[in-house]
Amino acid sequence: MLTFETQLRVRYAETDQMGFAYYGNYPQYYEVGRANAMRQLGTTYKDMEENGVVMPIVDMHIKYIRPARYDDLLTIKTIVSGLPASRMHFDYEIYNEEGILLNKGYTVLAFLKKETGRPCGAPDWFLNKLKEYGGLEVRS
Amino acid sequence: MLTFETQLRVRYAETDQMGFAYYGNYPQYYEVGRANAMRQLGTTYKDMEENGVVMPIVDMHIKYIRPARYDDLLTIKTIVSGLPASRMHFDYEIYNEEGILLNKGYTVLAFLKKETGRPCGAPDWFLNKLKEYGGLEVRS
Amino acid sequence: MLTFETQLRVRYAETDQMGFAYYGNYPQYYEVGRANAMRQLGTTYKDMEENGVVMPIVDMHIKYIRPARYDDLLTIKTIVSGLPASRMHFDYEIYNEEGILLNKGYTVLAFLKKETGRPCGAPDWFLNKLKEYGGLEVRS
Amino acid sequence: MLTFETQLRVRYAETDQMGFAYYGNYPQYYEVGRANAMRQLGTTYKDMEENGVVMPIVDMHIKYIRPARYDDLLTIKTIVSGLPASRMHFDYEIYNEEGILLNKGYTVLAFLKKETGRPCGAPDWFLNKLKEYGGLEVRS
Repeated sequence: MLTFETQLRVRYAETDQMGFAYYGNYPQYYEVGRANAMRQLGTTYKDMEENGVVMPIVDMHIKYIRPARYDDLLTIKTIVSGLPASRMHFDYEIYNEEGILLNKGYTVLAFLKKETGRPCGAPDWFLNKLKEYGGLEVRS
Repeated sequence: MLTFETQLRVRYAETDQMGFAYYGNYPQYYEVGRANAMRQLGTTYKDMEENGVVMPIVDMHIKYIRPARYDDLLTIKTIVSGLPASRMHFDYEIYNEEGILLNKGYTVLAFLKKETGRPCGAPDWFLNKLKEYGGLEVRS
Repeated sequence: MLTFETQLRVRYAETDQMGFAYYGNYPQYYEVGRANAMRQLGTTYKDMEENGVVMPIVDMHIKYIRPARYDDLLTIKTIVSGLPASRMHFDYEIYNEEGILLNKGYTVLAFLKKETGRPCGAPDWFLNKLKEYGGLEVRS
Repeated sequence: MLTFETQLRVRYAETDQMGFAYYGNYPQYYEVGRANAMRQLGTTYKDMEENGVVMPIVDMHIKYIRPARYDDLLTIKTIVSGLPASRMHFDYEIYNEEGILLNKGYTVLAFLKKETGRPCGAPDWFLNKLKEYGGLEVRS
């Protein structure tokens, strides 16, 4: 199991009149966590697209435990539990500065050829990055 | 079971470089469907807050079936299956102009007192709106 | 001078903790007004891109007069004052339901060939749509 | 004249189908620059609101020079040229990693009492922060 951490601050734009981060911003926070996880693995999602593969989200679940507020410095933990085959599963946990869990969820992403939109599975070069990084034994 | 329909067009702002509506916009689309459902019930979410109750989202699931594209005229079906008690469950289905199902999901909302943030359950006046509208027999 | 009107409701997502529509949402509101103006002219911005021309924004000014609030039904007036040459100028005025002016601004858009990113000026077929619609005598 | 720098990465959410950062995201980028400038001055915009003052934007101009792209690491320069009186003027310049100027603009913000919405001018404690930081001689 691999865990990656990244931080971001809640923007004023992301608050709503309830005084909290709007619930629709969490998919963006997950995106930031996921992009950072790929960067820490030695590649980027940009590389993925430049190699002809897009990764659209096919499934997402979010559990809103406590609200995040303006200017909160959030820690996003992005967790990869297994080597991807046709799809890739990411888990997320978001904590505030006091270490309190605010939010958790997951996303499932497909691997599609950019030109045709057909499923193509995780590219070998990406699987190798994951294997080189170590810590993943089984397919998710 | 109550079903409410509303339409919206995908904004350019909502597309991403994959050429699709970004996955993080669907919670906003659900919000538009939900707000419209409440309007059709003879009230508004604005009324709810003016009556001292806020309804934060506590749980959400989204299944992305096919992509929505720029300028698509989407139909959002918002479904209420039972009278709410402490929480309210909404189901959503999003169709394109050809009637193809693009996306489905649900949200669960809490009822909290605006002043204290404490759970207060669905207000009686709101339950009465639902009962007057008819079609809901059992608690969800 | 051509004036086009469209309406939209302020989404909860678009509010901020000040209780107003966040200032960064107005460019989206302008986009909705502009897209609707093109639709009323008998074409769409989608058509423009499918005809190989993209129209990025190169200049924008916004004057925030009074705040818009959640669930406000806004009227966006989009004004075209002249036939475009290399660039196209749109003016906007946003009113609330009481007819009070909340916001005004303009955007300037370039016409670029989608494939090369080179300036190409307003396409003839688009100028013809504007001329057929009538009301524009001079170049902006 | 005071210049503050902050960096941010363009999110996938912020791109549009043209493959660029959508023009409506720049006000958010300016917000991030402005919030960081206040933090570097030894306070935060959150402090401002907690001290009973809100700063809505009343005027904004943006010049889009070159597009920003997904995953670009942008440097936002936020410039304060004078001590604020009833309003505060911020200038912004956004550069990419190659140091190329992509975007420039300004915002003008009012100081309003949070409770009443009445203009109140820059609070003394905030002016003192600016004076202590040094470098500003005249009123803007």
